[in-house]
Amino acid sequence: MSEECDIGLIGLAVMGQNLSMNIASNGFKIGVFNRTYSKTVDTVEIAKKENLTIYGYKTLEELSKNLKKPRKVILLIKAGPAVDENINNILKYFEKGDIIIDGGNEWYLSSEKRIELCKEKNVEYIAMGVSGGELGARYGCSFMPGGSKYAYDCIKDILEKCSAKVGTSPCVTYIGSGSSGNYVKMIHNGIEYGDMQLIAESYFLMKHVLKYNNKKLSEVFKKWNEGILNSYLIEITYKILEKKDGLTENDLIDMIVDIAGAKGTGKWTMLESVERGIPCPTICAALDARNISSFMDLRTKTSSVFKTVIGAVPDNNTVTINDTIAKDIENDLLNALYCCKIISYTQGLFLLKKVSEEKKWNLNLGEIARIWRGGCIIRAVFLDRITNAYKNNKDLELLFLNEEFANEIKNKLPSLRKIINIATTHSVPIPAFSASLAYFQMITSKRLCLNMIQAQRDFFGSHTYKRLDKEGDYHTIWE
Amino acid sequence: MSEECDIGLIGLAVMGQNLSMNIASNGFKIGVFNRTYSKTVDTVEIAKKENLTIYGYKTLEELSKNLKKPRKVILLIKAGPAVDENINNILKYFEKGDIIIDGGNEWYLSSEKRIELCKEKNVEYIAMGVSGGELGARYGCSFMPGGSKYAYDCIKDILEKCSAKVGTSPCVTYIGSGSSGNYVKMIHNGIEYGDMQLIAESYFLMKHVLKYNNKKLSEVFKKWNEGILNSYLIEITYKILEKKDGLTENDLIDMIVDIAGAKGTGKWTMLESVERGIPCPTICAALDARNISSFMDLRTKTSSVFKTVIGAVPDNNTVTINDTIAKDIENDLLNALYCCKIISYTQGLFLLKKVSEEKKWNLNLGEIARIWRGGCIIRAVFLDRITNAYKNNKDLELLFLNEEFANEIKNKLPSLRKIINIATTHSVPIPAFSASLAYFQMITSKRLCLNMIQAQRDFFGSHTYKRLDKEGDYHTIWE
Repeated sequence: MSEECDIGLIGLAVMGQNLSMNIASNGFKIGVFNRTYSKTVDTVEIAKKENLTIYGYKTLEELSKNLKKPRKVILLIKAGPAVDENINNILKYFEKGDIIIDGGNEWYLSSEKRIELCKEKNVEYIAMGVSGGELGARYGCSFMPGGSKYAYDCIKDILEKCSAKVGTSPCVTYIGSGSSGNYVKMIHNGIEYGDMQLIAESYFLMKHVLKYNNKKLSEVFKKWNEGILNSYLIEITYKILEKKDGLTENDLIDMIVDIAGAKGTGKWTMLESVERGIPCPTICAALDARNISSFMDLRTKTSSVFKTVIGAVPDNNTVTINDTIAKDIENDLLNALYCCKIISYTQGLFLLKKVSEEKKWNLNLGEIARIWRGGCIIRAVFLDRITNAYKNNKDLELLFLNEEFANEIKNKLPSLRKIINIATTHSVPIPAFSASLAYFQMITSKRLCLNMIQAQRDFFGSHTYKRLDKEGDYHTIWE
Repeated sequence: MSEECDIGLIGLAVMGQNLSMNIASNGFKIGVFNRTYSKTVDTVEIAKKENLTIYGYKTLEELSKNLKKPRKVILLIKAGPAVDENINNILKYFEKGDIIIDGGNEWYLSSEKRIELCKEKNVEYIAMGVSGGELGARYGCSFMPGGSKYAYDCIKDILEKCSAKVGTSPCVTYIGSGSSGNYVKMIHNGIEYGDMQLIAESYFLMKHVLKYNNKKLSEVFKKWNEGILNSYLIEITYKILEKKDGLTENDLIDMIVDIAGAKGTGKWTMLESVERGIPCPTICAALDARNISSFMDLRTKTSSVFKTVIGAVPDNNTVTINDTIAKDIENDLLNALYCCKIISYTQGLFLLKKVSEEKKWNLNLGEIARIWRGGCIIRAVFLDRITNAYKNNKDLELLFLNEEFANEIKNKLPSLRKIINIATTHSVPIPAFSASLAYFQMITSKRLCLNMIQAQRDFFGSHTYKRLDKEGDYHTIWE
C-alpha cells in the first residue's frame, strides 16, 4: 500500500497543520483527519505548495485503516471533552498495541482517566506536552512525552526528528510513566509565568525609578541577553521595547493595555502547589499579578482614591539618581533578576520532584531542563546549568543547593535586597521579586516564627505542639 | 410526652458534648445520639453534674421519634464521608419540613450535594460554620448558618441564645442560601491564617532586629492590645510570651518547635482564590509559611549552606539601634501591622463578595463582620469598624476604599514601607507583610507592568492585545 502511513494526526488547527508538515518534511508518511473535512483538504493543499505530501482522510475509520501497525495517532485538539470524544471514536478502530498520543495542554488527572480507559482495550497511551507554539510545531518544538514506554520507543524516531535541536541534541526525552508529560508541561508553563513577571517588574522598575525611556530599556535588555540571562524571553523583551506603534507616533509598548490574559496552566500549577503544600510563591505572584491586572476599573478607581504615583520619590529621600547611581541600580537589578530566576526554578522543580516521588514517575530533572533548551518559551542558556546541576547530583533536593547556584545567590543576594528596598521606597510594585526573597529566606532559615503560630493554635484550639528538646506532643494549660 | 425534644444533636466529641450542654443550659430540651453509646451515657452524666438534663438515645430512630416536629438535628461530626452516612440514616426517619444542620467545617461543594439530596426528600438543610472552639461551644460561639431560610427561622431562637454575645448582640445571623455558611467560615479561617502570620512576623522582627527579650515582647503586645489592634489573637500572643516553660528554666515560646500545622480551611481558601482568580496573597503567604515550616530538615541543611543569620546587620549598615530608634521602629511596626490587617481583610472579603455575586448568596458583609466579633478566633474591636464601613456603603467593592480605612492606610503606608526595608536589610523573612504591600500597590495602580506580559504573549503566541486608545483586539507581526 503506497498510502500506508507511519503516523496519523487528528485536529488541523494551526498547531496540527504545522506539526503535520513538520512530520512530512522529516520524511514520514502522515495521514490526517479533521472533523471538518475542508480543513483536511486545505492542509493537503498547503503542504503541496511546500512540496510535501500529506494524506487526508474523510473519516477516522479511513485514517485508521491506512496506518501501519502498531497504529499511531497524535491528537492536537482542544483539551477537555473533545479529546474524550475522539478517543472513544479511535478506540472503535484501534487494536491491542496501537498507540494514542495526546499533544494538548491537558489537566493531568484527565489523562490519568484516559490511560485507564485505553488500558482496558490494551491500547497504549502517551500524554505529551508540546512547547514551541506555531513555529515550533512547524520547525521543531520541545516534546514532553510521558506514559507508555513501549509507545515512546515506537514514536521516538519521529519525535526526535521533529523536535527542536540544540547543537545535535533533540529536545525530547521519555519523561516518565502516567500523566507525567502533562505535569512537566504544566510546571514549564508555571515557570514561564514567573520568568515573564520578573522581567516585567524589572522593566517597570527601570522605567519608573531610573526613568529610562523605551530605547534605553531596550538597550539594557539587549545587553542582558548577551550575558547570564541570555534567553528567548529577554530577547523578545528588547525587541518589544524597540517596536514602534504603526498607528501613532508612540512606541508600541506604551499603547498596550496592561491586562494580561492566561490560558490556565499557571492556575493549574498553583492549584497543585496549594493542594500538595509545596509553595511556589514566585509563580503565585505572577498569577496574582495577571489576575489583579484584570480589575482595570477598580484599579483606576482606587488609584484616584490613594493618589498612587508609581516611582514617586518619598519626601525624606535625598538621593538623586544620577548616571552612576543608575548604572549601579541597573547592575543590582540584573543580579536580583538572576537570583529570583534561580529561586523561582527551585520552587517549580521542587514541586516536580515531590510529585515525581509520590507518583513514582522517576523524573530526571536534568533531562527535563535539557529538553527545555530548544523550542520552549523559557529556552535559555541558564537551563544548561540546571542540567549540569542534576548531572552532578541527580537527587539534588533544591536546585539552589547546587554549589554554583548557591554561590551565585550568596553573591547576588545583597543586590536583591537593595532592589527590593529601592522598589519599596519608590512605590513600584514588585510582587514576584518580594515573593522570591521571602521564599528564599524562609526555606533557608533554621528557625522561623512559626513557633508563635503553633503556640497560638495550642492556646485557642488545643492543637498541641512539639518541643525542641524532647520527643512527643505537648499541650499547655495557658490560662 | 415529657421527653419531646426541641432539637437533637449527633456526634458527642468535645464540641458536640459542649454544644449540647450549652443548648440545655439555655432551657431547651435536647436529645443526643452517638455511634458509640457509651459516649452518650457519658454526656448525660457530665450534664447531670452541672444540673443539666440531656436526653440520650441508643439509636437514631429513637432520637428521631423523640423530636418535636418539624424535627431539627445538628450534626457535629468529622467532615466528609461520615456526614454523608449520617445524613443517609437520618433521611430514613425524617419527613417533609424536618431540618438537618451540619455544624462541621465542611467543604462547601460537599454541602451543595447534600442540599440537593435533602431537597429530593423535602428535608431542609443548613450548612453552618461554628467558630469558638470547645469553650465557645459550651458558653457561646459564633454561628454562621446558611441554607434554608425557613429552617433558619425555626432554629433562630436556639442559635441566638447559644451564641456568644457582644453587648446584647448575638453572634449569629442568617448568612445566605446554599452553602454560604461553609464558605463564610472558610474565609474566616483564611483571614485567621493571615492575622496569625502577621503577628508572628511582627514578633520575629522585634525579636531579631530590636533584640527584645520575651518579657519586653510581651509588654509590647500587651500595650498594642489596648489600642486599635485590641483582639483575641494579640491578647493570647502577649500571654504566650509571658508563659514560663514548666520543664526548663526557659520561656515556653523558646522551647516550641517552629512548625505550624493546618487543618485544611486555609488551603481551601487558597484553592478557591486561585480557582476564581481573586488573589489573596496575604493569606497565601501565611499558608506558604506553614507549609515551608514543615520542611525542617531541609531548612536546617540550607541554613548551614547559606549561613543564614536572621537579624544580621549588613556590613555597610552604620545605624545602631538605640532605644529611641527601637521605639520608632516599634511604632512603625504597629502601623504596618494594622495596615496589613486592613489589606488582608480586604482580600478575603473581596473574594467573599465576588463569590456571593456569582452564587447570588446576597451576603451582608457588615453583618458577617458583626457576628465575628464574639466567639471567633479573629474577634477584635477592628470588626466593628468593618461593620460600619459596610453600613455606610453595603456595596463597598474593596474594604479599604472605605474613607476611614483609606485614610488610615494613607497615613500608615510610610511605616509599612519602612518596616519592609528594615526586615529586608536585616534578613528577617516577612512574607505576609511583603505580600500585603505588593497587593495594595498592584490593586491601587492605574498602570501595571502587565502590558509587557501581554506584548510577550502576543509575540510568542499570537494571543493578541488591547490598545489604550482604541477598541478591539490587535496582533502585531513583531519580527
